[in-house]
Amino acid sequence: MSFDKGNGGNKNFGKKYQNNKQSSLKSRRADLKKDSDSYDQDTSDKSIILGRNPVIESLKAGKLIDSIYVNSEAGGSISVICRLAKEQGIVIKQVSEQKLNKMADGASHQGVIAMTACAEYVDIQDILDIAKEKNEPPFIIICDEIEDPHNLGAIIRTAEASGAHGVIIPKRRSASLNHTVFKTSAGAAAWVPVARVSNLSQAVDTLKENGVWIYGTDTSGEDYRSVSFDGAVGLIIGSEGFGMSRLLKEKCDFLLRLPLAGKITSLNASVAGGIFMYEVLKSRTV
Amino acid sequence: MSFDKGNGGNKNFGKKYQNNKQSSLKSRRADLKKDSDSYDQDTSDKSIILGRNPVIESLKAGKLIDSIYVNSEAGGSISVICRLAKEQGIVIKQVSEQKLNKMADGASHQGVIAMTACAEYVDIQDILDIAKEKNEPPFIIICDEIEDPHNLGAIIRTAEASGAHGVIIPKRRSASLNHTVFKTSAGAAAWVPVARVSNLSQAVDTLKENGVWIYGTDTSGEDYRSVSFDGAVGLIIGSEGFGMSRLLKEKCDFLLRLPLAGKITSLNASVAGGIFMYEVLKSRTV
Repeated sequence: MSFDKGNGGNKNFGKKYQNNKQSSLKSRRADLKKDSDSYDQDTSDKSIILGRNPVIESLKAGKLIDSIYVNSEAGGSISVICRLAKEQGIVIKQVSEQKLNKMADGASHQGVIAMTACAEYVDIQDILDIAKEKNEPPFIIICDEIEDPHNLGAIIRTAEASGAHGVIIPKRRSASLNHTVFKTSAGAAAWVPVARVSNLSQAVDTLKENGVWIYGTDTSGEDYRSVSFDGAVGLIIGSEGFGMSRLLKEKCDFLLRLPLAGKITSLNASVAGGIFMYEVLKSRTV
Repeated sequence: MSFDKGNGGNKNFGKKYQNNKQSSLKSRRADLKKDSDSYDQDTSDKSIILGRNPVIESLKAGKLIDSIYVNSEAGGSISVICRLAKEQGIVIKQVSEQKLNKMADGASHQGVIAMTACAEYVDIQDILDIAKEKNEPPFIIICDEIEDPHNLGAIIRTAEASGAHGVIIPKRRSASLNHTVFKTSAGAAAWVPVARVSNLSQAVDTLKENGVWIYGTDTSGEDYRSVSFDGAVGLIIGSEGFGMSRLLKEKCDFLLRLPLAGKITSLNASVAGGIFMYEVLKSRTV
């Protein structure tokens, strides 16, 4: 197994954000940015951290950690690691000893492996603030369980190119800001803020409370050619296999469909997302 | 190493084409179609053929072979294999013994491995004929060295969905109709005819002689929002890394660009292709 190497994404992200409001980012994140250059040097050559003490020290030092894989049967300080991770809102995944062995590729892991992130997550309010600062109606991409990192990377890349202010992904059943996503995004993951939320449905409610119209995609929807994307847009991109979840579909202000002239019944999620994102861009001045 | 299993693509393709003109397909291909069902059964569980006799027999039987990997230093009947493959226009790739060992995953290969195709190739004239039969102006996708099979698969999928009559790919420096492409295309590779040509530039000339307008994509081009896609369209999708080749660019009747609102300078090839293909579909009635 090989792991993608870090590629300085944090550095760009840090520089970008140094000029933006930081008020709503958690203090851990703010502290990190103060020393973003030394942090880059420290993590540029690895994307996983193996073993109890290294993981504990990384958590205490506030390193950018995407998720932690633990074998809870391993006992001992694993519980300390889980508590620290929970406090920081980091996703904890319970896995078997065999899975950890495979991830560690033979190296000693003592029942715990942390995956570092290639960029930090923001809050939904940060994304709304960025739109406000730019004096633009918010344009936000909501990824509903996009599990393939190549698809998520391509979506983030197109989001950046089409002028979206941010991307929202769920904590569960979704690819995260790992190094494959960063690479596939052609570096765009360093420029587009990504919020990772526990509950996508609540996130959509928050957007609606802030005057954002929610557009979903479904075969039962209107032909996208007859719909206008004026104003604040929240665009939900459904998962490859199952499309949008029922709950999210019910929250949509508009349901759109792409005409399909042939025999197949759907497009690749990142391609469909790209077509819609560029429809939004079309309705805005670039 | 694992190989994707065959999935009956030939069967669908064969059925589709039994109702179409076959005049310009080579006799080998026509013979194959006569017995498409038994052919499916024969190859549905494998996508590679290992060893000299199996490869020679497959070539003689006219099996759908995408490309042949040989270690030319192996000597003996390898030259017979190369001659048979050349006669049938099959791509031959010279590789090292180590590469063959890796591809064979430990099995005996005797210096030669054939990769079966998941669908057969057609000629450009077949694609033009299909448009004519449908009484539609041709809409053809030209892939300029798309090497990533996932990208080619996604392009073929979107081509099918957007009503394109066919896809043209080059023999060299391009993914071919292998099983990864078939899978990524969500089966669309069974429905969209694909022509594989030795010279993409000559292929474009052929299209132009048949009244097809050639649209290329380049950062120096016009904003795509100001261009109409009426009439016969040949859309060139440039490679991920380098965009369109200079020679092809010079042959274009129109050069288009997608506006990029952010910092990154290009989109994923299949996403950019998808946006353009749906612009063409928009200008046609579905």
